[in-house]
Amino acid sequence: MSISALDVIRKKRDGNELSREEIDFFLRGNTQGEIPDSQAAAWLMAVVLRGLTVQETACLTDAMLYSGEVMDLSALPAPKVDKHSTGGVGDKTSFVLAPLAAAGGLIVPMISGRGLGHTGGTLDKYEAIQGVSVNLSLSRFREVLETCGCAIVGATEEIAPADRKLYALRNATGTVESPFLICASIMSKKLAEGIDALVLDVKAGSGSFLKHDEDAMHVARLMVGTGRRMGKKTVALITDMDQPLGCNVGNALELAEAISVLRGRGPEDLRQLCVELVGWMFQLGGRVDSVEEGKRLGIELIRSGEAFDRFRQMVGLQGGDVKAVDEPSRLPKAQGKLDVASPRTGYVTSIQCEAIGKASVLLGGGRESEGDAVDPAVGIVLHKKVAQPVKAGEPLCTIHYNSQARLDRALPLIEQSFEIGDVPPEPGRIVRQVIPEL
Amino acid sequence: MSISALDVIRKKRDGNELSREEIDFFLRGNTQGEIPDSQAAAWLMAVVLRGLTVQETACLTDAMLYSGEVMDLSALPAPKVDKHSTGGVGDKTSFVLAPLAAAGGLIVPMISGRGLGHTGGTLDKYEAIQGVSVNLSLSRFREVLETCGCAIVGATEEIAPADRKLYALRNATGTVESPFLICASIMSKKLAEGIDALVLDVKAGSGSFLKHDEDAMHVARLMVGTGRRMGKKTVALITDMDQPLGCNVGNALELAEAISVLRGRGPEDLRQLCVELVGWMFQLGGRVDSVEEGKRLGIELIRSGEAFDRFRQMVGLQGGDVKAVDEPSRLPKAQGKLDVASPRTGYVTSIQCEAIGKASVLLGGGRESEGDAVDPAVGIVLHKKVAQPVKAGEPLCTIHYNSQARLDRALPLIEQSFEIGDVPPEPGRIVRQVIPEL
Repeated sequence: MSISALDVIRKKRDGNELSREEIDFFLRGNTQGEIPDSQAAAWLMAVVLRGLTVQETACLTDAMLYSGEVMDLSALPAPKVDKHSTGGVGDKTSFVLAPLAAAGGLIVPMISGRGLGHTGGTLDKYEAIQGVSVNLSLSRFREVLETCGCAIVGATEEIAPADRKLYALRNATGTVESPFLICASIMSKKLAEGIDALVLDVKAGSGSFLKHDEDAMHVARLMVGTGRRMGKKTVALITDMDQPLGCNVGNALELAEAISVLRGRGPEDLRQLCVELVGWMFQLGGRVDSVEEGKRLGIELIRSGEAFDRFRQMVGLQGGDVKAVDEPSRLPKAQGKLDVASPRTGYVTSIQCEAIGKASVLLGGGRESEGDAVDPAVGIVLHKKVAQPVKAGEPLCTIHYNSQARLDRALPLIEQSFEIGDVPPEPGRIVRQVIPEL
Repeated sequence: MSISALDVIRKKRDGNELSREEIDFFLRGNTQGEIPDSQAAAWLMAVVLRGLTVQETACLTDAMLYSGEVMDLSALPAPKVDKHSTGGVGDKTSFVLAPLAAAGGLIVPMISGRGLGHTGGTLDKYEAIQGVSVNLSLSRFREVLETCGCAIVGATEEIAPADRKLYALRNATGTVESPFLICASIMSKKLAEGIDALVLDVKAGSGSFLKHDEDAMHVARLMVGTGRRMGKKTVALITDMDQPLGCNVGNALELAEAISVLRGRGPEDLRQLCVELVGWMFQLGGRVDSVEEGKRLGIELIRSGEAFDRFRQMVGLQGGDVKAVDEPSRLPKAQGKLDVASPRTGYVTSIQCEAIGKASVLLGGGRESEGDAVDPAVGIVLHKKVAQPVKAGEPLCTIHYNSQARLDRALPLIEQSFEIGDVPPEPGRIVRQVIPEL
């Protein structure tokens, strides 16, 4: 009995479990253009609404992974460990973690993505440094890794092409928000990196695709299960995304903030999350015996300047202007700045994180449609974060803009993002949970 | 705030009610090619799995109806009444009802469809008569109606183009089986006919798209509600499709059986259903005061030969060979015949209706893919129906075929369709229910 695309769609529509053969057939057919996007879109919506079993999720991950090349980095004489975030607002940890982990003796082959929806993209932020190339061939990627232990690049055509095609379709058809599809998409790309271990930063809260802790923990468990099934040491940290991470939102602004962390400064929440994540990377990679020891190693590598030096080296190897790393004031700057004043005296009780992210996109910092150019200079700098006191008229944030029309669209969103109350809320913990539970 | 296709998909995906503006926007966008089929397919699957409210179903029907022309037959001096069936195996009532109702003084502007899945199509059956044209312009359609009171035609480009486009997509994406979409698709085309009243024949059972009575009643209530909201007198009969209707399955075979009913002969279940349906058509059209009176009028118009004469006239006006109506032996004939013998003595306890329909398609009587040519001659003639006694070796049915290869594919399905037991089952009623309940 031959498999038909229609039968596969109907089977999932009716809530039944698909076999490995059926998932392989459907994925391969769509990647090769034999199954049209309309059929794939109907199937994706059925998956979003009916879900996948653990077995189906594993089969889908495999089908995506083996649709392309899997890197073999076994010749490099150090543990290969990556970190991946599910995406949030103001998340610039990759620029700290890649050189920090490499400075501690790990290889970090980081394949990252572009901005999506209201969240920024690591590649867009990285390209705020003039000259940086993220489109390395696999052989050049390997050379950079051999030289400095880390590189941040985009997925090449060879990496998980089935995911690349399906991802664009999901983005257009309202089928992004499925824990099963999120897991398969992320894990297929990460497993293609040829890594030994993976630390997942799963964002939970108003600025994440996963608004509720339970959703975040569901995705985290799926991904950890998938990674371990493939023989990779994997943990997931559920981390706070109820307000932007750090103070800067926007491409060059975020890069500058990451550099300040590498120099031993920067906002406390961002610094603390980077140290937590690198502690896990060192522990999974076998460089230390405990996460606490790993965190201490991370702190020391920042203090000594080794992490910063490694970042500088990586930027240079990827063609970037190293002077901008030394003097972040050389990074692209917006022409206009506008302070948003607090309407009253009190405490910041919440910051609508998704609204801040959308405002940054509207300013030009992200893409409203695929193929839009990204303005590296614009963004928002927060002066007050949740639980901090503020006086009436004192600036809550400063908007960096290049177009009055864009500012007019973004301003109302930003003004409405801040809630000021009389009582400061309990401060949230940056790491809410570790999966698997210890 | 402008509407986006993505927002409409997401809203339905999350189980929320769409506004009239959102449904209009989405339908118009897809019909005009601005919203790609991949987005429409994702939306359709969300509709299948989340359902539509009564209000949404009404908006969707309107959007499809007003995507094209609505015929104005008000100048014709008689009530305009149509019958529509949701599709089954061996359903040839249209050929009896159109001339029979017209002979009783109604105008029957019947826009029909092609074969779909395992069910045959009225237009395919009608074209078994050499020369018949079902592609009439709206003005020629009106002329035929003026002359003989009835015509059976295909939908022109002007009728509900939004439904035509969406229907092809549903067929390819596993999104046919939704009561809400079925209702909107049927009712938009029927309301475009400019009718005053409509009798719906909603099939329930193994040979219908609606296997269970509750599903059939759900669709029936949706359609009756939609028809009445538009000011049309509408009733639905839930009728038996647990075995083929009549004895003949296949295009020319079914047409010949309809002709024999028009001549006062034919199998009892088919004859009885035609009389029931036309009784309702006469009553809704105001030609009689009660359905019983309408049934008596129908029986009399068959007995007198007026219904047959009207069929003959309609065929002639549509360019068909009238001699084939007078002598159905002139209709296309298959080259080979094969009897299927009963393996044992007993009673027919069930006939797998969908399997018989599929077998007819495999013989060439229907389309496996869009655009396939249909063989008018092939099909299956049942000699035994449910509850009838049979002796071992006695023929259950005769297969009419033109290709040994096709016969080889169809035969196992047919052999497995008949179940023979020791005790005859209770005979089912041909009309199971009338909606709205009286």
